[in-house]
Amino acid sequence: MLCPASCLPLLREMAQWRCLLGWHRHHGVSTGVTAGAGLGSEVRVVVGGTTRPICRTNPQQGSKYASAGCLLSLHHSEKPEHEEVCEFRPYTCPCPGASCKWQGSLEAVMPHLMHAHKSITTLQGEDIVFLATDINLPGAVDWVMMQSCFGHHFMLVLEKQEKYEGHQQFFAVVLLIGTRKQAENFAYRLELNGNRRRLTWEATPRSIHDGVAAAIMNSDCLVFDTSIAHLFADNGNLGINVTISMC
Amino acid sequence: MLCPASCLPLLREMAQWRCLLGWHRHHGVSTGVTAGAGLGSEVRVVVGGTTRPICRTNPQQGSKYASAGCLLSLHHSEKPEHEEVCEFRPYTCPCPGASCKWQGSLEAVMPHLMHAHKSITTLQGEDIVFLATDINLPGAVDWVMMQSCFGHHFMLVLEKQEKYEGHQQFFAVVLLIGTRKQAENFAYRLELNGNRRRLTWEATPRSIHDGVAAAIMNSDCLVFDTSIAHLFADNGNLGINVTISMC
Repeated sequence: MLCPASCLPLLREMAQWRCLLGWHRHHGVSTGVTAGAGLGSEVRVVVGGTTRPICRTNPQQGSKYASAGCLLSLHHSEKPEHEEVCEFRPYTCPCPGASCKWQGSLEAVMPHLMHAHKSITTLQGEDIVFLATDINLPGAVDWVMMQSCFGHHFMLVLEKQEKYEGHQQFFAVVLLIGTRKQAENFAYRLELNGNRRRLTWEATPRSIHDGVAAAIMNSDCLVFDTSIAHLFADNGNLGINVTISMC
Repeated sequence: MLCPASCLPLLREMAQWRCLLGWHRHHGVSTGVTAGAGLGSEVRVVVGGTTRPICRTNPQQGSKYASAGCLLSLHHSEKPEHEEVCEFRPYTCPCPGASCKWQGSLEAVMPHLMHAHKSITTLQGEDIVFLATDINLPGAVDWVMMQSCFGHHFMLVLEKQEKYEGHQQFFAVVLLIGTRKQAENFAYRLELNGNRRRLTWEATPRSIHDGVAAAIMNSDCLVFDTSIAHLFADNGNLGINVTISMC
Protein backbone atom coordinates (compact mmCIF):
# COMPACT_ATOMS: atom_id res chain seq x y z
CA MET A 1 0.00 0.00 0.00
CA LEU A 2 1.62 3.24 -1.07
CA CYS A 3 0.95 6.47 0.74
CA PRO A 4 -0.86 9.03 -1.37
CA ALA A 5 1.61 11.82 -2.11
CA SER A 6 -0.85 14.38 -0.79
CA CYS A 7 -0.13 13.53 2.84
CA LEU A 8 3.59 14.25 2.64
CA PRO A 9 3.42 18.07 2.99
CA LEU A 10 1.35 17.67 6.13
CA LEU A 11 3.77 15.20 7.64
CA ARG A 12 6.74 17.46 6.93
CA GLU A 13 5.20 20.02 9.28
CA MET A 14 4.83 17.67 12.19
CA ALA A 15 7.93 17.02 14.24
CA GLN A 16 6.51 13.98 15.95
CA TRP A 17 5.87 12.25 12.65
CA ARG A 18 9.36 13.04 11.40
CA CYS A 19 10.72 11.46 14.54
CA LEU A 20 8.74 8.33 13.92
CA LEU A 21 9.67 8.30 10.25
CA GLY A 22 13.34 8.38 11.13
CA TRP A 23 13.14 5.49 13.58
CA HIS A 24 13.88 2.80 11.06
CA ARG A 25 16.99 4.41 9.62
CA HIS A 26 19.20 3.18 12.43
CA HIS A 27 18.51 -0.36 11.31
CA GLY A 28 20.18 0.04 7.89
CA VAL A 29 18.87 -2.12 5.07
CA SER A 30 15.38 -3.22 5.85
CA THR A 31 14.54 -6.86 6.19
CA GLY A 32 11.21 -6.15 4.54
CA VAL A 33 7.73 -5.60 5.85
CA THR A 34 7.34 -7.79 8.88
CA ALA A 35 3.99 -7.03 10.34
CA GLY A 36 1.52 -7.58 7.54
CA ALA A 37 -1.22 -5.22 6.51
CA GLY A 38 -3.11 -4.25 9.62
CA LEU A 39 -4.52 -0.82 10.36
CA GLY A 40 -1.96 1.94 9.92
CA SER A 41 0.61 -0.48 8.53
CA GLU A 42 3.97 0.83 7.50
CA VAL A 43 4.29 2.18 3.98
CA ARG A 44 7.58 1.88 2.17
CA VAL A 45 9.11 2.67 -1.21
CA VAL A 46 12.24 1.01 -2.45
CA VAL A 47 14.99 3.47 -3.48
CA GLY A 48 18.33 2.20 -4.77
CA GLY A 49 18.05 -1.16 -3.06
CA THR A 50 17.25 0.24 0.39
CA THR A 51 13.83 0.68 1.94
CA ARG A 52 12.90 4.01 3.45
CA PRO A 53 9.74 4.72 5.39
CA ILE A 54 7.74 7.50 3.77
CA CYS A 55 4.72 8.01 5.95
CA ARG A 56 2.69 6.50 8.72
CA THR A 57 -1.02 7.13 8.71
CA ASN A 58 -1.39 5.93 12.31
CA PRO A 59 1.34 5.04 14.81
CA GLN A 60 -1.08 2.72 16.62
CA GLN A 61 -1.60 -0.47 14.66
CA GLY A 62 -3.90 -3.41 14.91
CA SER A 63 -2.48 -6.85 15.61
CA LYS A 64 -1.58 -9.12 12.70
CA TYR A 65 -4.38 -11.31 14.03
CA ALA A 66 -7.05 -8.57 14.06
CA SER A 67 -9.10 -10.51 11.53
CA ALA A 68 -9.06 -13.53 13.88
CA GLY A 69 -10.51 -11.41 16.70
CA CYS A 70 -7.61 -9.53 18.33
CA LEU A 71 -8.85 -6.04 19.23
CA LEU A 72 -5.53 -4.64 20.46
CA SER A 73 -4.09 -1.48 18.97
CA LEU A 74 -0.33 -1.29 19.39
CA HIS A 75 2.64 0.89 18.63
CA HIS A 76 4.48 -0.73 15.74
CA SER A 77 7.49 -1.44 17.96
CA GLU A 78 5.28 -3.51 20.26
CA LYS A 79 3.72 -5.54 17.49
CA PRO A 80 6.31 -8.33 17.03
CA GLU A 81 6.38 -9.11 20.75
CA HIS A 82 2.60 -9.09 21.01
CA GLU A 83 2.07 -11.16 17.91
CA GLU A 84 4.38 -13.84 19.28
CA VAL A 85 2.03 -14.35 22.23
CA CYS A 86 -1.29 -13.18 20.71
CA GLU A 87 -4.06 -15.59 21.70
CA PHE A 88 -5.59 -15.12 18.24
CA ARG A 89 -2.48 -16.44 16.49
CA PRO A 90 -3.45 -19.72 14.83
CA TYR A 91 -2.48 -22.86 16.75
CA THR A 92 0.07 -25.08 15.05
CA CYS A 93 0.12 -28.85 15.44
CA PRO A 94 1.51 -29.43 18.96
CA CYS A 95 3.34 -32.64 18.03
CA PRO A 96 7.07 -32.18 18.59
CA GLY A 97 9.26 -31.93 15.53
CA ALA A 98 8.46 -29.82 12.50
CA SER A 99 7.05 -32.51 10.23
CA CYS A 100 3.33 -31.63 10.57
CA LYS A 101 2.56 -28.23 9.09
CA TRP A 102 -1.08 -28.11 10.20
CA GLN A 103 -2.47 -24.97 11.80
CA GLY A 104 -5.93 -23.91 12.83
CA SER A 105 -8.10 -22.79 15.71
CA LEU A 106 -7.81 -24.13 19.24
CA GLU A 107 -11.08 -26.04 18.83
CA ALA A 108 -9.66 -27.80 15.78
CA VAL A 109 -6.51 -29.07 17.51
CA MET A 110 -7.99 -32.21 19.13
CA PRO A 111 -9.89 -33.26 15.97
CA HIS A 112 -6.62 -32.78 14.05
CA LEU A 113 -4.66 -34.96 16.50
CA MET A 114 -7.32 -37.68 16.47
CA HIS A 115 -7.45 -37.64 12.69
CA ALA A 116 -3.84 -37.10 11.65
CA HIS A 117 -1.92 -38.54 14.63
CA LYS A 118 -3.97 -41.62 15.45
CA SER A 119 -0.97 -43.42 16.94
CA ILE A 120 -0.90 -41.14 19.99
CA THR A 121 -2.32 -43.01 23.00
CA THR A 122 -4.74 -41.26 25.35
CA LEU A 123 -5.12 -42.20 29.03
CA GLN A 124 -7.96 -40.97 31.23
CA GLY A 125 -7.36 -39.74 34.76
CA GLU A 126 -5.48 -37.24 36.87
CA ASP A 127 -2.74 -39.67 37.80
CA ILE A 128 -1.26 -41.89 35.10
CA VAL A 129 2.03 -43.51 34.09
CA PHE A 130 3.70 -42.31 30.92
CA LEU A 131 5.82 -45.27 29.82
CA ALA A 132 8.59 -44.38 27.38
CA THR A 133 9.95 -47.53 25.80
CA ASP A 134 13.42 -48.08 24.32
CA ILE A 135 14.94 -44.91 25.74
CA ASN A 136 18.32 -46.12 24.48
CA LEU A 137 17.28 -45.59 20.86
CA PRO A 138 20.06 -43.52 19.27
CA GLY A 139 19.64 -39.94 18.09
CA ALA A 140 16.87 -37.44 18.75
CA VAL A 141 13.65 -39.19 19.75
CA ASP A 142 10.23 -38.00 20.97
CA TRP A 143 7.69 -39.90 23.03
CA VAL A 144 4.20 -38.40 23.07
CA MET A 145 0.92 -39.30 24.72
CA MET A 146 -2.32 -37.60 25.79
CA GLN A 147 -3.86 -37.42 29.24
CA SER A 148 -7.52 -36.44 29.69
CA CYS A 149 -8.84 -35.08 32.97
CA PHE A 150 -10.76 -32.13 34.38
CA GLY A 151 -12.54 -31.88 31.02
CA HIS A 152 -9.26 -31.00 29.27
CA HIS A 153 -6.65 -32.73 27.18
CA PHE A 154 -2.98 -32.56 28.10
CA MET A 155 -0.09 -33.58 25.87
CA LEU A 156 2.83 -35.31 27.59
CA VAL A 157 6.12 -35.08 25.75
CA LEU A 158 9.48 -36.69 26.48
CA GLU A 159 12.19 -35.56 24.12
CA LYS A 160 15.75 -36.85 23.87
CA GLN A 161 18.14 -34.52 22.15
CA GLU A 162 21.63 -33.07 22.21
CA LYS A 163 21.01 -29.49 23.28
CA TYR A 164 24.75 -29.35 23.97
CA GLU A 165 27.01 -31.26 21.59
CA GLY A 166 28.06 -34.62 22.93
CA HIS A 167 25.68 -34.44 25.89
CA GLN A 168 22.40 -36.22 25.33
CA GLN A 169 19.58 -35.11 27.63
CA PHE A 170 15.93 -35.92 28.21
CA PHE A 171 13.32 -33.17 28.53
CA ALA A 172 9.82 -33.92 29.80
CA VAL A 173 6.96 -31.43 29.81
CA VAL A 174 3.16 -31.25 29.97
CA LEU A 175 1.21 -29.02 27.58
CA LEU A 176 -2.44 -28.07 27.81
CA ILE A 177 -4.49 -28.19 24.66
CA GLY A 178 -5.78 -24.76 25.59
CA THR A 179 -4.82 -21.15 26.09
CA ARG A 180 -2.16 -19.82 28.43
CA LYS A 181 -4.88 -18.43 30.67
CA GLN A 182 -6.54 -21.85 30.92
CA ALA A 183 -3.16 -23.46 31.64
CA GLU A 184 -2.69 -21.26 34.69
CA ASN A 185 -5.55 -23.09 36.40
CA PHE A 186 -3.57 -26.33 36.50
CA ALA A 187 -0.38 -27.78 37.93
CA TYR A 188 1.43 -30.94 36.93
CA ARG A 189 3.94 -33.23 38.59
CA LEU A 190 6.37 -35.52 36.80
CA GLU A 191 8.00 -38.15 38.95
CA LEU A 192 10.75 -40.67 38.29
CA ASN A 193 10.90 -43.42 40.90
CA GLY A 194 13.87 -45.73 41.29
CA ASN A 195 15.71 -47.73 43.88
CA ARG A 196 15.68 -45.40 46.90
CA ARG A 197 15.70 -42.41 44.56
CA ARG A 198 13.04 -40.03 43.33
CA LEU A 199 13.25 -37.07 40.95
CA THR A 200 10.23 -34.75 40.79
CA TRP A 201 9.37 -31.70 38.71
CA GLU A 202 6.26 -29.65 39.48
CA ALA A 203 5.11 -26.72 37.36
CA THR A 204 2.26 -25.08 35.47
CA PRO A 205 1.46 -26.79 32.17
CA ARG A 206 2.55 -24.93 29.08
CA SER A 207 -0.13 -23.95 26.59
CA ILE A 208 0.37 -25.60 23.21
CA HIS A 209 0.57 -22.01 21.98
CA ASP A 210 4.05 -21.86 23.56
CA GLY A 211 5.05 -25.30 22.40
CA VAL A 212 7.65 -27.81 23.51
CA ALA A 213 10.65 -26.07 21.97
CA ALA A 214 10.30 -22.97 24.16
CA ALA A 215 10.19 -25.09 27.33
CA ILE A 216 13.28 -27.05 26.29
CA MET A 217 15.19 -23.94 25.25
CA ASN A 218 14.73 -22.45 28.74
CA SER A 219 15.10 -25.82 30.52
CA ASP A 220 11.68 -24.98 32.00
CA CYS A 221 10.75 -28.64 32.28
CA LEU A 222 12.06 -31.86 33.80
CA VAL A 223 15.62 -32.23 32.51
CA PHE A 224 17.81 -35.27 33.10
CA ASP A 225 20.72 -36.91 31.37
CA THR A 226 21.19 -40.50 30.23
CA SER A 227 22.96 -41.52 33.47
CA ILE A 228 19.94 -40.41 35.49
CA ALA A 229 17.59 -42.06 32.99
CA HIS A 230 19.40 -45.34 33.56
CA LEU A 231 19.07 -45.00 37.34
CA PHE A 232 15.29 -44.99 36.86
CA ALA A 233 14.78 -47.10 33.74
CA ASP A 234 13.89 -50.75 33.79
CA ASN A 235 15.21 -52.74 30.85
CA GLY A 236 15.35 -49.64 28.64
CA ASN A 237 11.83 -48.51 29.56
CA LEU A 238 11.24 -45.40 31.61
CA GLY A 239 8.01 -44.89 33.55
CA ILE A 240 7.13 -41.30 34.41
CA ASN A 241 4.31 -40.76 36.90
CA VAL A 242 2.23 -37.82 35.72
CA THR A 243 -0.23 -36.09 38.03
CA ILE A 244 -2.41 -33.17 36.97
CA SER A 245 -4.17 -31.04 39.57
CA MET A 246 -6.27 -27.90 39.61
CA CYS A 247 -4.92 -24.85 41.42
CA MET B 1 59.55 -58.42 49.67
CA LEU B 2 61.47 -60.80 47.39
CA CYS B 3 60.62 -64.47 47.19
CA PRO B 4 63.35 -66.78 48.50
CA ALA B 5 64.79 -68.63 45.52
CA SER B 6 64.22 -71.93 47.31
CA CYS B 7 60.50 -71.92 46.54
CA LEU B 8 60.98 -71.80 42.76
CA PRO B 9 61.64 -75.53 42.17
CA LEU B 10 58.53 -76.43 44.11
CA LEU B 11 56.40 -74.00 42.13
CA ARG B 12 57.68 -75.34 38.81
CA GLU B 13 56.11 -78.65 39.71
CA MET B 14 52.68 -77.26 40.35
CA ALA B 15 50.54 -76.56 37.33
CA GLN B 16 48.05 -74.42 39.22
CA TRP B 17 50.79 -72.08 40.40
CA ARG B 18 52.24 -71.77 36.92
CA CYS B 19 48.81 -70.75 35.74
CA LEU B 20 48.63 -68.06 38.39
CA LEU B 21 52.16 -66.95 37.71
CA GLY B 22 51.35 -66.44 34.05
CA TRP B 23 48.24 -64.36 34.70
CA HIS B 24 49.98 -61.02 34.76
CA ARG B 25 51.85 -61.44 31.50
CA HIS B 26 48.86 -60.47 29.43
CA HIS B 27 49.07 -57.01 30.92
CA GLY B 28 52.48 -56.19 29.43
CA VAL B 29 54.65 -53.77 31.37
CA SER B 30 53.62 -53.69 34.99
CA THR B 31 52.41 -50.52 36.59
CA GLY B 32 54.16 -51.56 39.79
CA VAL B 33 53.06 -53.24 42.96
CA THR B 34 49.56 -52.08 43.67
CA ALA B 35 48.33 -53.98 46.64
CA GLY B 36 50.91 -53.36 49.36
CA ALA B 37 52.33 -55.96 51.68
CA GLY B 38 49.44 -57.91 53.11
CA LEU B 39 49.39 -61.66 53.64
CA GLY B 40 50.50 -63.56 50.55
CA SER B 41 51.15 -60.32 48.69
CA GLU B 42 52.52 -60.50 45.19
CA VAL B 43 56.28 -60.80 44.89
CA ARG B 44 58.05 -59.37 41.88
CA VAL B 45 61.53 -58.93 40.53
CA VAL B 46 62.46 -56.36 37.94
CA VAL B 47 64.14 -57.81 34.84
CA GLY B 48 65.20 -55.51 32.02
CA GLY B 49 62.71 -52.80 32.91
CA THR B 50 59.69 -55.09 33.13
CA THR B 51 58.21 -56.65 36.22
CA ARG B 52 57.53 -60.36 36.28
CA PRO B 53 55.78 -62.25 39.03
CA ILE B 54 57.95 -64.98 40.41
CA CYS B 55 55.91 -66.72 43.04
CA ARG B 56 52.74 -66.54 45.06
CA THR B 57 52.81 -68.13 48.46
CA ASN B 58 49.02 -68.02 48.86
CA PRO B 59 46.33 -67.26 46.26
CA GLN B 60 44.04 -65.95 49.02
CA GLN B 61 45.26 -62.60 50.23
CA GLY B 62 44.38 -60.30 53.09
CA SER B 63 42.99 -56.87 52.34
CA LYS B 64 45.40 -53.98 52.05
CA TYR B 65 43.64 -52.67 55.15
CA ALA B 66 44.13 -55.82 57.22
CA SER B 67 46.22 -53.89 59.73
CA ALA B 68 43.31 -51.43 60.16
CA GLY B 69 40.96 -54.28 61.05
CA CYS B 70 39.75 -55.85 57.76
CA LEU B 71 39.57 -59.61 58.26
CA LEU B 72 38.68 -60.56 54.68
CA SER B 73 40.77 -62.99 52.70
CA LEU B 74 40.43 -62.51 48.96
CA HIS B 75 41.63 -63.85 45.65
CA HIS B 76 44.14 -61.37 44.26
CA SER B 77 41.81 -60.56 41.38
CA GLU B 78 39.14 -59.46 43.88
CA LYS B 79 41.45 -57.26 45.91
CA PRO B 80 41.34 -53.99 43.94
CA GLU B 81 37.55 -53.95 43.88
CA HIS B 82 37.27 -54.77 47.56
CA GLU B 83 39.91 -52.28 48.60
CA GLU B 84 38.05 -49.53 46.80
CA VAL B 85 35.04 -50.06 49.07
CA CYS B 86 36.73 -51.55 52.17
CA GLU B 87 35.29 -49.97 55.29
CA PHE B 88 38.76 -50.07 56.86
CA ARG B 89 40.23 -47.87 54.15
CA PRO B 90 41.24 -44.60 55.79
CA TYR B 91 38.77 -41.73 55.32
CA THR B 92 40.04 -38.81 53.30
CA CYS B 93 38.95 -35.23 53.93
CA PRO B 94 35.38 -35.04 52.51
CA CYS B 95 35.71 -31.43 51.33
CA PRO B 96 35.28 -31.29 47.56
CA GLY B 97 38.36 -30.55 45.52
CA ALA B 98 41.72 -32.19 46.03
CA SER B 99 43.43 -29.46 48.01
CA CYS B 100 43.23 -31.07 51.48
CA LYS B 101 45.31 -34.24 51.67
CA TRP B 102 44.25 -35.23 55.18
CA GLN B 103 43.24 -38.80 55.89
CA GLY B 104 42.41 -40.66 59.06
CA SER B 105 39.79 -42.67 60.90
CA LEU B 106 36.05 -41.96 60.68
CA GLU B 107 36.09 -40.65 64.25
CA ALA B 108 38.77 -38.14 63.32
CA VAL B 109 36.84 -36.62 60.37
CA MET B 110 34.67 -34.17 62.34
CA PRO B 111 37.56 -32.94 64.53
CA HIS B 112 39.56 -32.44 61.31
CA LEU B 113 36.75 -30.42 59.68
CA MET B 114 36.28 -28.29 62.79
CA HIS B 115 40.00 -27.65 63.07
CA ALA B 116 41.13 -27.32 59.45
CA HIS B 117 37.95 -26.11 57.71
CA LYS B 118 36.58 -23.66 60.26
CA SER B 119 34.78 -21.63 57.59
CA ILE B 120 32.20 -24.38 56.97
CA THR B 121 28.91 -23.39 58.60
CA THR B 122 26.88 -25.95 60.56
CA LEU B 123 23.10 -25.79 60.95
CA GLN B 124 21.17 -27.90 63.44
CA GLY B 125 17.92 -29.62 62.50
CA GLU B 126 16.33 -32.06 60.09
CA ASP B 127 14.97 -29.37 57.81
CA ILE B 128 17.22 -26.47 56.87
CA VAL B 129 17.92 -24.10 53.98
CA PHE B 130 21.28 -24.38 52.23
CA LEU B 131 21.81 -20.93 50.75
CA ALA B 132 24.38 -20.83 47.96
CA THR B 133 25.35 -17.24 47.24
CA ASP B 134 26.72 -15.82 43.99
CA ILE B 135 25.92 -18.85 41.87
CA ASN B 136 26.97 -16.82 38.83
CA LEU B 137 30.61 -16.85 39.89
CA PRO B 138 32.57 -18.05 36.85
CA GLY B 139 34.38 -21.38 36.66
CA ALA B 140 34.17 -24.44 38.90
CA VAL B 141 32.86 -23.52 42.34
CA ASP B 142 31.85 -25.52 45.43
CA TRP B 143 29.48 -24.53 48.19
CA VAL B 144 29.70 -26.64 51.35
CA MET B 145 27.90 -26.68 54.67
CA MET B 146 27.16 -29.11 57.49
CA GLN B 147 23.79 -30.21 58.84
CA SER B 148 23.51 -31.92 62.25
CA CYS B 149 20.53 -34.05 63.17
CA PHE B 150 19.68 -37.53 64.45
CA GLY B 151 23.03 -37.49 66.28
CA HIS B 152 24.93 -37.42 62.98
CA HIS B 153 26.67 -34.88 60.81
CA PHE B 154 25.81 -34.53 57.14
CA MET B 155 27.83 -32.60 54.57
CA LEU B 156 25.84 -30.69 51.95
CA VAL B 157 27.70 -29.97 48.74
CA LEU B 158 26.70 -27.92 45.72
CA GLU B 159 29.24 -28.09 42.92
CA LYS B 160 29.26 -26.13 39.68
CA GLN B 161 31.40 -27.64 36.97
CA GLU B 162 31.61 -28.41 33.28
CA LYS B 163 31.23 -32.17 33.21
CA TYR B 164 30.60 -31.75 29.49
CA GLU B 165 32.59 -29.04 27.69
CA GLY B 166 30.65 -25.84 27.21
CA HIS B 167 27.76 -27.01 29.40
CA GLN B 168 27.96 -25.79 32.96
CA GLN B 169 25.89 -27.80 35.45
CA PHE B 170 25.18 -27.79 39.17
CA PHE B 171 25.36 -30.99 41.22
CA ALA B 172 23.96 -31.14 44.76
CA VAL B 173 24.38 -34.07 47.11
CA VAL B 174 24.23 -34.99 50.80
CA LEU B 175 26.99 -37.07 52.39
CA LEU B 176 26.92 -38.71 55.80
CA ILE B 177 30.00 -38.41 57.96
CA GLY B 178 29.70 -42.11 58.55
CA THR B 179 29.90 -45.52 56.94
CA ARG B 180 27.84 -46.75 53.98
CA LYS B 181 25.91 -48.98 56.34
CA GLN B 182 25.01 -46.04 58.58
CA ALA B 183 24.02 -43.98 55.52
CA GLU B 184 21.43 -46.58 54.54
CA ASN B 185 19.40 -45.66 57.61
CA PHE B 186 18.71 -42.17 56.25
CA ALA B 187 17.04 -40.45 53.33
CA TYR B 188 17.46 -36.87 52.18
CA ARG B 189 15.41 -34.49 50.05
CA LEU B 190 16.77 -31.50 48.15
CA GLU B 191 14.16 -29.06 46.95
CA LEU B 192 14.35 -25.99 44.74
CA ASN B 193 11.27 -23.79 44.98
CA GLY B 194 10.47 -21.10 42.46
CA ASN B 195 7.55 -19.28 40.93
CA ARG B 196 5.02 -22.10 40.41
CA ARG B 197 7.88 -24.55 39.95
CA ARG B 198 9.53 -27.11 42.17
CA LEU B 199 12.41 -29.49 41.53
CA THR B 200 12.99 -32.26 44.08
CA TRP B 201 15.60 -35.00 44.44
CA GLU B 202 15.22 -37.69 47.10
CA ALA B 203 17.83 -40.34 47.78
CA THR B 204 19.99 -42.12 50.34
CA PRO B 205 22.89 -40.01 51.56
CA ARG B 206 26.29 -41.04 50.28
CA SER B 207 28.89 -42.04 52.82
CA ILE B 208 31.92 -39.74 52.76
CA HIS B 209 33.80 -42.95 51.96
CA ASP B 210 32.29 -42.73 48.46
CA GLY B 211 32.83 -39.00 48.15
CA VAL B 212 31.26 -36.31 46.02
CA ALA B 213 33.11 -37.14 42.81
CA ALA B 214 31.53 -40.61 42.52
CA ALA B 215 28.01 -39.15 42.87
CA ILE B 216 28.70 -36.50 40.23
CA MET B 217 30.30 -38.96 37.85
CA ASN B 218 27.14 -41.11 37.89
CA SER B 219 24.76 -38.10 38.06
CA ASP B 220 23.45 -39.84 41.21
CA CYS B 221 22.50 -36.53 42.79
CA LEU B 222 20.41 -33.44 42.03
CA VAL B 223 21.62 -32.19 38.64
CA PHE B 224 20.50 -28.96 37.02
CA ASP B 225 21.90 -26.53 34.52
CA THR B 226 22.36 -22.77 34.75
CA SER B 227 18.98 -22.04 33.08
CA ILE B 228 17.18 -24.04 35.77
CA ALA B 229 19.33 -22.43 38.47
CA HIS B 230 18.17 -19.01 37.26
CA LEU B 231 14.52 -20.11 37.38
CA PHE B 232 14.96 -20.72 41.10
CA ALA B 233 17.65 -18.22 42.10
CA ASP B 234 16.92 -14.86 43.64
CA ASN B 235 19.44 -12.17 42.81
CA GLY B 236 22.17 -14.74 42.21
CA ASN B 237 21.48 -16.63 45.43
CA LEU B 238 20.04 -20.12 45.38
CA GLY B 239 18.23 -21.57 48.38
CA ILE B 240 18.04 -25.34 48.56
CA ASN B 241 15.68 -26.84 51.14
CA VAL B 242 17.37 -29.86 52.67
CA THR B 243 15.41 -32.40 54.71
CA ILE B 244 16.99 -35.44 56.34
CA SER B 245 14.81 -38.28 57.59
CA MET B 246 15.36 -41.72 59.07
CA CYS B 247 14.14 -44.76 57.14
